Amino acid sequence: MLNRGAIQHCKACGAAVVYRLPDDGDTRERAVCPQCQTVHYENPLNVVGTIPFMDDRVLLCLRNIEPRRGKWTLPAGFMELGETVAQGAARETHEEAGAQIEMLDLFSLMNVVRVGQVHFFFRARLLSETFDPGHETQEVRLFRQDQIPWDEIAFRTVRETLQRFFEDRERGQFGLHQIDIQ
Amino acid sequence: MLNRGAIQHCKACGAAVVYRLPDDGDTRERAVCPQCQTVHYENPLNVVGTIPFMDDRVLLCLRNIEPRRGKWTLPAGFMELGETVAQGAARETHEEAGAQIEMLDLFSLMNVVRVGQVHFFFRARLLSETFDPGHETQEVRLFRQDQIPWDEIAFRTVRETLQRFFEDRERGQFGLHQIDIQ
Repeated sequence: MLNRGAIQHCKACGAAVVYRLPDDGDTRERAVCPQCQTVHYENPLNVVGTIPFMDDRVLLCLRNIEPRRGKWTLPAGFMELGETVAQGAARETHEEAGAQIEMLDLFSLMNVVRVGQVHFFFRARLLSETFDPGHETQEVRLFRQDQIPWDEIAFRTVRETLQRFFEDRERGQFGLHQIDIQ
Repeated sequence: MLNRGAIQHCKACGAAVVYRLPDDGDTRERAVCPQCQTVHYENPLNVVGTIPFMDDRVLLCLRNIEPRRGKWTLPAGFMELGETVAQGAARETHEEAGAQIEMLDLFSLMNVVRVGQVHFFFRARLLSETFDPGHETQEVRLFRQDQIPWDEIAFRTVRETLQRFFEDRERGQFGLHQIDIQ
């Protein structure tokens, strides 16, 4: 899901940037503009989504876009400005699955350091079996644990979240799972 | 802590961008380059820090930089690429306070929608009373609850976190606090 090219030009004035330590005591090299002195920071991005469930079944979306077109995923996407983590997760569920949900607790919080991302998944109770997938989704389907296409899951964070969801469901108690994905 | 000017030029080629809907079905206006078609996304930033404590006292840092120079804060700063949320929180504690800590659980997770930030604070046990503040900190001091300078706290997320920390400490049980700051 990484979608970031290196910064080559200043966002304020368009001059070519140089990578160096800024003058403010910062200890990391940044893209600094030699014309207007703007310092450009690059930071991790948040990915927010839900585990929409109904009784013993979980909703998955068949991806219609790259990366991992044709693989199954939980509804999730990049958090946007102007929303909370939970609002973003609800928005993605609406956009990708057109599902009616009641948002429940945060379930998994995962660091994906290699791609500079933090993933958040909330449990969400499905209120209806009627869906309306958006253009990013080929198909929406409900799966019982023994029906999950484990080898066809699009992302490791989704697989790890689903595994823990079914484990907790069997135990009858849901916790917050903090996981570092290597 | 917001530090983002509007994108006016393309980071890839330097041409002046236009704000419009991208061609991929996105529903938000983005800074799009009319020359090379690069789409520029702006997303929330994570701020990561700790509540360093020793017995009934909490470590605060007197800020030596703007914003809020001369106000007290918990050690915290922007999460960087190449680290987990917890690693970033430990790094900031080292950089701003020079404190030796044992990292404990995530304590507060706060949406600050107005400035496009998500704040994470972890409890951290102080292993020593020797500190070595960096250039961003004028002074490091330990405060009991009745000594906290509540009117001189730099940021609302820090005040909310401290209040809940002392409440949970009195109760004898620490939870995860999810808070939306208006």
